Amino acid sequence: MKKPKIVILGAGYGGLMTAVKLQKQVGVNEADIVLVNKNDYHYETTWLHEASAGTLHHDRVRYEIRDVIDRHKVEFIQGTVEEIKLEEKRVILDNGDVMYDYLVVALGAEPETFGIKGLKEFAFSIVNVNSARQLREHIEYQFATYNTEAEKREERLAIVVGGAGFTGIEFLGELANRVPELCREYDVDYHKVKVICVEAAPMVLPGFDPELVNYAVAQLEKKGIEFMIGTPIKECTPEGIIVGKGEDEVEEIKAGTVVWAAGVRGSSVIEKSGFEAMRGRIKVEPDLRAPGQEDVFIVGDCALIINEEINRPYPPTAQIAMQEGEVVARNLAALIRNKQDLETFTPDIKGTVCSLGEDDAIGVAFGKKMVGGKASFMKKMIDNRSLYMIGGASLVLKKGKFNVL
Amino acid sequence: MKKPKIVILGAGYGGLMTAVKLQKQVGVNEADIVLVNKNDYHYETTWLHEASAGTLHHDRVRYEIRDVIDRHKVEFIQGTVEEIKLEEKRVILDNGDVMYDYLVVALGAEPETFGIKGLKEFAFSIVNVNSARQLREHIEYQFATYNTEAEKREERLAIVVGGAGFTGIEFLGELANRVPELCREYDVDYHKVKVICVEAAPMVLPGFDPELVNYAVAQLEKKGIEFMIGTPIKECTPEGIIVGKGEDEVEEIKAGTVVWAAGVRGSSVIEKSGFEAMRGRIKVEPDLRAPGQEDVFIVGDCALIINEEINRPYPPTAQIAMQEGEVVARNLAALIRNKQDLETFTPDIKGTVCSLGEDDAIGVAFGKKMVGGKASFMKKMIDNRSLYMIGGASLVLKKGKFNVL
Repeated sequence: MKKPKIVILGAGYGGLMTAVKLQKQVGVNEADIVLVNKNDYHYETTWLHEASAGTLHHDRVRYEIRDVIDRHKVEFIQGTVEEIKLEEKRVILDNGDVMYDYLVVALGAEPETFGIKGLKEFAFSIVNVNSARQLREHIEYQFATYNTEAEKREERLAIVVGGAGFTGIEFLGELANRVPELCREYDVDYHKVKVICVEAAPMVLPGFDPELVNYAVAQLEKKGIEFMIGTPIKECTPEGIIVGKGEDEVEEIKAGTVVWAAGVRGSSVIEKSGFEAMRGRIKVEPDLRAPGQEDVFIVGDCALIINEEINRPYPPTAQIAMQEGEVVARNLAALIRNKQDLETFTPDIKGTVCSLGEDDAIGVAFGKKMVGGKASFMKKMIDNRSLYMIGGASLVLKKGKFNVL
Repeated sequence: MKKPKIVILGAGYGGLMTAVKLQKQVGVNEADIVLVNKNDYHYETTWLHEASAGTLHHDRVRYEIRDVIDRHKVEFIQGTVEEIKLEEKRVILDNGDVMYDYLVVALGAEPETFGIKGLKEFAFSIVNVNSARQLREHIEYQFATYNTEAEKREERLAIVVGGAGFTGIEFLGELANRVPELCREYDVDYHKVKVICVEAAPMVLPGFDPELVNYAVAQLEKKGIEFMIGTPIKECTPEGIIVGKGEDEVEEIKAGTVVWAAGVRGSSVIEKSGFEAMRGRIKVEPDLRAPGQEDVFIVGDCALIINEEINRPYPPTAQIAMQEGEVVARNLAALIRNKQDLETFTPDIKGTVCSLGEDDAIGVAFGKKMVGGKASFMKKMIDNRSLYMIGGASLVLKKGKFNVL
């Protein structure tokens, strides 16, 4: 009998968790396991705001995949997925094809710009190590250039962050700490720097407790961040952004750096491969398979799961992606052993903490609201837990976040 | 009797040396001494190639002026000199006017682009802390951007250095060490990076011993630097440069970074103020005064002194500028004491060493040719000597270069 071949696309939180759980649960004689990823490293998506601001080096937010997979059990292929041919059970990569018996689609997210003109061309994003590193260097270059020009242009020093959601707020928290460092490095007067958060929705951090949100806004404002809430970005240009003001009016905000942190969508490979999806997210079955597909599981940013309590989708978080990976690994083990009774996935939200920089945060964990140093400590514990769940204690020791006393 | 007022314009090697020598030689009751400089810091011009490549932080190549001047004796004004009104004995600054009885013009150099189209707009230069820092960040940004683009453009990673003179070669030496670091930092394949030196003259390092020059070229070529000698740059564009090939042909070299290191001229304030000069350099009298000016001394890059032996001007070096500063200080002390017999300046060239990176160099010192580690050690001694002569042992300890064993 031929061994079934399990192919996992993507080594983000969901895909990598699937791989490391599978390698424990499935014997080498039971199945071939293949992990496909664009890079030879995994990165902590939830830490990218730090690498983007320059407060944490990008090598701290990534680790090599071969350090956490068992290469006797999991074959790793470095390649970019271009399309999934469902009928042929084949995955087209930029550098070859891979056939599968079972597939796990964990291809992650892309920025969603909602058709707003110029965002794709002129705004930076916080989506992977490459984009984070480029954003960090772009900001540095703007600061470095400021003093070289005979006519000083203060707009060079202006940073617009589009979006007051999780990523936007966490990035602003890091920027608030980073700007004084940049000012020292490039001999720039701190008062000439502007950091503006522009958000179309009428609120900051929708879904968060209002008391915590007020704390977050007050803390960031104290550090000089300006908020323009209920203000849609109409266009992004090489000079900055154009925002809507009231009914018909618009206003230009000049800025050397525009960051789009207001939306992500699932991988565009999803639609390209013929899945029925909403912005790259597939409404999965309770066992995390794609509707009508017996052998294709979806995890992470490409999976859409409805929170029945409020009849709205769960936000795609690292926490949920990893829990999905665990369930998918068990369901795959069951399938290759010809058990048809698959486990149903239910997210177990242990807590949500939004960082406001190095030593401040807001959040809810174990049912308790918390702010400041306590919340910040909890955030670091959550970050370390992600490492622990995939790579164990040794990965925490290597890449973990510890308060330096 | 009114105390005479001595105004020194510029705190480079020549100006700062004049100031620190004057403060020792002239009593507070004898003269008022004013030092004017654009920045509140002095920088080591001869170390800027390191800050530009990113091999030495720019804070290591500068120190605060107030750390080396005696503020009881020398008044410091931070301002940019716009023009000298010789007839009125007045200096126009961007932020005020200063009157003088005696003037020392030590305004340094500017890049000379010889009218080559596009160089001013699109090429970077190694002339001060601001430009060095911008160049460093520009190169980093090019490397950071490379991996973010769907279609990789290898020309982003190409660096053209225009000029195989002292600055060009020393910068190439640093780049050769820096590129492997940049490749690691930005996940770039080393073989995709090109560093090309383009020089119009038929030789590298004119004036240097041919045996040493051959050593330098071989060492740099071994590290991957390409040389295009006898090749004039015709134009610089946002995409790279256009060079002349043979009689009428041209060739485009695409490069994300173009550095112009092929020429400097004295400050443009010189011509603006009505001095007779050649590219901002005034052919000074033997006592370092400007021709026809009893009360104006010229030192450093703005002073032109002929080497009688070969009937050509001495190159404007830090070594000569500091020696000029010492003579000018003594001549000013004589003048305010009404002695009309001024000292004649003769350069005393102790040696010339051209760095080829961290641990390699070529040079002649005390009449001996040397290469490699020995020459590199000598170069660091020369760099430390500049610090010592202006700020004494404490400045050497603070900013000096020591081999870390």
